[in-house]
Amino acid sequence: MTTPEAREEAVLEAVRKRREQVNEAIPEELPIQRPERLYEASRYLLDAGGKRLRPTVLLATGEALVDAEPLSEDYRAFPTIDGERTETRSADSSSGPPRDTIDLMDAAVSVEVIQSFTLIHDDIMDDDDLRRGVPAVHKEYDLGTAILAGDTLYSKAFEIMLETGADPARTVDALGILATTCTKICEGQSLDITFENRTDVTPEEYLEMVEQKTAVLYAASACLPAILLGADDETIDALYGYGLDIGRAFQIQDDVLDLTVPSEKLGKQRGSDLVENKQTLITVHARDQGVDIEGLVDTTDVDAVTEAEIDDAVARLEEAGSISYANDKARDLVDQGKARLEVLPDNEARELLCQLADYLIERGY
Amino acid sequence: MTTPEAREEAVLEAVRKRREQVNEAIPEELPIQRPERLYEASRYLLDAGGKRLRPTVLLATGEALVDAEPLSEDYRAFPTIDGERTETRSADSSSGPPRDTIDLMDAAVSVEVIQSFTLIHDDIMDDDDLRRGVPAVHKEYDLGTAILAGDTLYSKAFEIMLETGADPARTVDALGILATTCTKICEGQSLDITFENRTDVTPEEYLEMVEQKTAVLYAASACLPAILLGADDETIDALYGYGLDIGRAFQIQDDVLDLTVPSEKLGKQRGSDLVENKQTLITVHARDQGVDIEGLVDTTDVDAVTEAEIDDAVARLEEAGSISYANDKARDLVDQGKARLEVLPDNEARELLCQLADYLIERGY
Repeated sequence: MTTPEAREEAVLEAVRKRREQVNEAIPEELPIQRPERLYEASRYLLDAGGKRLRPTVLLATGEALVDAEPLSEDYRAFPTIDGERTETRSADSSSGPPRDTIDLMDAAVSVEVIQSFTLIHDDIMDDDDLRRGVPAVHKEYDLGTAILAGDTLYSKAFEIMLETGADPARTVDALGILATTCTKICEGQSLDITFENRTDVTPEEYLEMVEQKTAVLYAASACLPAILLGADDETIDALYGYGLDIGRAFQIQDDVLDLTVPSEKLGKQRGSDLVENKQTLITVHARDQGVDIEGLVDTTDVDAVTEAEIDDAVARLEEAGSISYANDKARDLVDQGKARLEVLPDNEARELLCQLADYLIERGY
Repeated sequence: MTTPEAREEAVLEAVRKRREQVNEAIPEELPIQRPERLYEASRYLLDAGGKRLRPTVLLATGEALVDAEPLSEDYRAFPTIDGERTETRSADSSSGPPRDTIDLMDAAVSVEVIQSFTLIHDDIMDDDDLRRGVPAVHKEYDLGTAILAGDTLYSKAFEIMLETGADPARTVDALGILATTCTKICEGQSLDITFENRTDVTPEEYLEMVEQKTAVLYAASACLPAILLGADDETIDALYGYGLDIGRAFQIQDDVLDLTVPSEKLGKQRGSDLVENKQTLITVHARDQGVDIEGLVDTTDVDAVTEAEIDDAVARLEEAGSISYANDKARDLVDQGKARLEVLPDNEARELLCQLADYLIERGY
């Protein structure tokens, strides 16, 4: 029997080892070039940190699919599923240049670059000042540079995804997933903004918004290796579902952490979602229980709110059972997502994907 | 002998007929769907008008490549160059679904959608209030919605380009062009912004900026049909060069028109480039001639400038020979671009591409 602490430690170690490789790959794929200020702004948040959870899901899924020992493969030259792992040129008949291996790290960097683009633009829309403990890009630079930095990351993500060396048909499918994922993220962000002015959002509507805004990028991360390495449709669909489930659970946990983690550790003001009238599963549930959500915090200015006000608000939400409700929902989603992994070979990397799912809702920040 | 007026009339008619088809295709490819406000904002500028010059270049290049009578082909089911125009399934060996024809209209809409995305974000960065005679998207809606509308168009352009039915290897090449084009547009816009704070920009630097900001999308428009329809590399490169040349000429003419066309006709304040300290080939040249560009207009507020001030400024630029210089440069680029078209079969559509090039610098607005 492993203890929860030992399990978390193992996951963090697995994430850390992949993060190191992703962190090395980012400046290779996205070098600072002319115009320097634009590329520095584009790299600013990527260089400021981040757990690289989405790339980790992507890389671990690749390992599980080819039944590899975790971290035993070179992500830059990853074997395909369908036995093209020879030193000879591929016998595949497509018109692209034949390749024996796939650069899965390109795909991993691509999804992280998309994630970073959405953070830069979201911070402008939400007028958030801090991100990952540093100023948001539009604060560190300026509005125009931040918009443009996001736009640059957007097209760079597509350029990088084009470089995996996969068969053109698989590359087309991968780019299709990337493009529809970006569209859904925009739709989700748009719903999120309109929800701020509504007091009748249902849990179903909230979960739909979260699916689009957050979960689809986890879903893309989980299914992209299956597409690029040549898995069958059943596997691709199951992995997409796993990503959607754990992505929704991740966002619900994020909403819980926004209320419960000290500002210092969070890298931004605790309770900022409440102050800014962001809908979360917690507030949607609490309103159903008769809690006056709009009255919980007096100000709409994150700089003016006091810790005591946030403490009182959290106590009210706890009384209403809303935080437990969110925790339970996240747990259900994670269990559902883990069950979908049965489509994969039973191996250590699959076990890691299960642990990662647990970690997303057990993490302290 | 045709008169210049007759030639312009013929070009306008050719543009108009293709524009009508493009205008029909836009709502098909980009329907208003949930969340409605997001898609309405995304469509706002596209629906407000525009000459559709880039889609016209794209569609006419397709016609020239397959040696078709202008407007005789269905753009939604366009024949390929390499004889795949049969009713049988393609014998091409790639792994994508075989198709006999290409939906060239998808490619045309895709480049127009990219163009619209850049206008929305540029208007925010430049804080321009008007575009095509209507409020800019961030004025009609709000900042967040405008950023998000641009982002949505961005990914939609990729989704639409994925639908042409071309062979996967050609689709991959087309998406590669689209992605690098978007990156260059961002780089060009970034240079343009930094130029506003510099007084030592050379004509070469200006032309490099214009190439990235504006001309690459014309270059993509001209070479995309060659890629999708299966032309050889020499043809693809020549058409890319044609697009770069006429795109640069187009931007230089745009800069001239900003000074010479009445605000009403222009759809925004005449001389706004001067007021906002935008570098143009005209100002770069005039500064070289000793003109005090910063002193030409006193205000930096487009709403405060008078017509008389603009008139005086234009007179000074004319005296310095800067407007003639810009006109000559645009003419040289157009002639160079037209010469590149010799790679195409000698047909009516090629002639139209020549006339289009002339039109870009002869147009009155």
